[in-house]
Amino acid sequence: MANILAWLPRTSGEQNNRGLSIRSKGNSNKNRGGGFSFSSLRGTSQPELSKRLYRLIKSENSLISAHETAGRERVSIATQLSEWGEQTHDDAVSDISDKVGVVLSEIGEQEDQYAHALDDSRAVLKAVRNTEKSVQPSRDNKAKISDQIAFLKTKEPDSPRLVVLEQELVRAEAENLVAEAQLTNVTRQKLKEAFEAEFAATIERAEKQIILARHGQRLLKLLDDTPVVPGDSRAAYQYSGQARQILNDAEDDLREWQPEINDDEAETNGHEGNITGNVRHDGAGSIGADDTGAEGAAGAEGADVERVVGEA
Amino acid sequence: MANILAWLPRTSGEQNNRGLSIRSKGNSNKNRGGGFSFSSLRGTSQPELSKRLYRLIKSENSLISAHETAGRERVSIATQLSEWGEQTHDDAVSDISDKVGVVLSEIGEQEDQYAHALDDSRAVLKAVRNTEKSVQPSRDNKAKISDQIAFLKTKEPDSPRLVVLEQELVRAEAENLVAEAQLTNVTRQKLKEAFEAEFAATIERAEKQIILARHGQRLLKLLDDTPVVPGDSRAAYQYSGQARQILNDAEDDLREWQPEINDDEAETNGHEGNITGNVRHDGAGSIGADDTGAEGAAGAEGADVERVVGEA
Repeated sequence: MANILAWLPRTSGEQNNRGLSIRSKGNSNKNRGGGFSFSSLRGTSQPELSKRLYRLIKSENSLISAHETAGRERVSIATQLSEWGEQTHDDAVSDISDKVGVVLSEIGEQEDQYAHALDDSRAVLKAVRNTEKSVQPSRDNKAKISDQIAFLKTKEPDSPRLVVLEQELVRAEAENLVAEAQLTNVTRQKLKEAFEAEFAATIERAEKQIILARHGQRLLKLLDDTPVVPGDSRAAYQYSGQARQILNDAEDDLREWQPEINDDEAETNGHEGNITGNVRHDGAGSIGADDTGAEGAAGAEGADVERVVGEA
Repeated sequence: MANILAWLPRTSGEQNNRGLSIRSKGNSNKNRGGGFSFSSLRGTSQPELSKRLYRLIKSENSLISAHETAGRERVSIATQLSEWGEQTHDDAVSDISDKVGVVLSEIGEQEDQYAHALDDSRAVLKAVRNTEKSVQPSRDNKAKISDQIAFLKTKEPDSPRLVVLEQELVRAEAENLVAEAQLTNVTRQKLKEAFEAEFAATIERAEKQIILARHGQRLLKLLDDTPVVPGDSRAAYQYSGQARQILNDAEDDLREWQPEINDDEAETNGHEGNITGNVRHDGAGSIGADDTGAEGAAGAEGADVERVVGEA
């Protein structure tokens, strides 16, 4: 079951952790071969810095569609199951298939909501890509001026343009320092935010679908499947009240569901604590705190431009 | 969140349980309009009795493909994330993105295994469809002979063929009694088996993805996202050992995962007991017992044919 983790050497040292990585060996672009398309051309027009994230964000779109499709098909199957059950003219099969259909339909609905949560997380990653995209010209500009200075120093060491270029370089370096700080800040904050949201959505879908599946199992138990002999008729079905109660229970459980949030204390403890030792979300989680941090950074950057320029 | 359940009238009586059903109103075939295709024509050639299940089983194929696609895209995104992280030249982002990639990749692998489990459940439903398909001729034959008898009684009440037809009818009725018993037995047993398997697979995927997502959250916490000011460099990344340990923990937790099985006692208790009061699977569950029941039925049917024929 844990294929990817299973082939990892458990006792690998620092220098031999190949198995704990999923990076392709060699140039990671080598395996990218394949056909052209307008979208792949559009990907090529991205600055080098944001190319990989551009592609990743595109792939997330396919992932999201797949979960949307799964949700839609699940709801359709639920209806078909119910309608099939009706035409069996067997009261028990009819009732149970209809109510199992309600449960399956809700499982499909959860799949669809998961797709929407992934879409939100995808939007967060776009912030990183956009910052990468905007940082590239700053790097290019700095490099271009450096090159010009190096060229002039060899060809026309007394050129008056050298002084101007040196001033331009200081300005470009200052601008780039800010850009690179913005890049690392946005990258780390948004990377965490995006995947924290994905993991939270994965847990939410999982916990809700567990609730539904367990109630679905209860419904199936109401269907008497002891075989009858030819000519004998089955006992009358008498569980429609219980079946309805199970749906009500499922509804209650879903309504009462709340996200669990990892106890911050548990972070430094053994992993057992992290998996099992959760506290109920009280609305004062660490995610809100991150946002404040990002705004603080913007202020600091502004102040620092002055410092860098002053030193020049 | 619980949309489908939410609009149900909670206090509905026996006669007003519309909301607890997902069946379409009116003739359920009315909404089926739409284009022709070879596959829809093939569906039409199914006997009336197995048409609905035939379509449902086809829809399950789309559901399975959707989950397979989701799993494949997830693994691809995981690799892309890792490779993107490498090119950031930020040790912390590189290590965390790579290891989060391992977790995402395993989440994708679980999605793929879920698709395979759904495929197994789909194969079980085929047994019901095939039985439906084989019962239709038996019903048709019985009806045809009855019609012939009714026709002859009006037109040629003294025809010697009537005696032969009456004998044929008794034989056809006997055969049909067996066929209908087989149908109800197979339908109930396989319906339970198929959806028990689906719900179990839903729970397995959910529980394993929760394990993975929680460890993924632990990984993200190792990424320091406090903002830096321009010109300052970040503290050296020192959590690669801890990150590796988290992957090992995830591997251990996945390996130790076991299916929980509902306590049979809990069936008659309140639903709280069913959701939370589970015991570990000890290998002697009720699923094995169902199979034995099915074989017992086959034996009983054989004996009963004699009885029915003897009475005639």
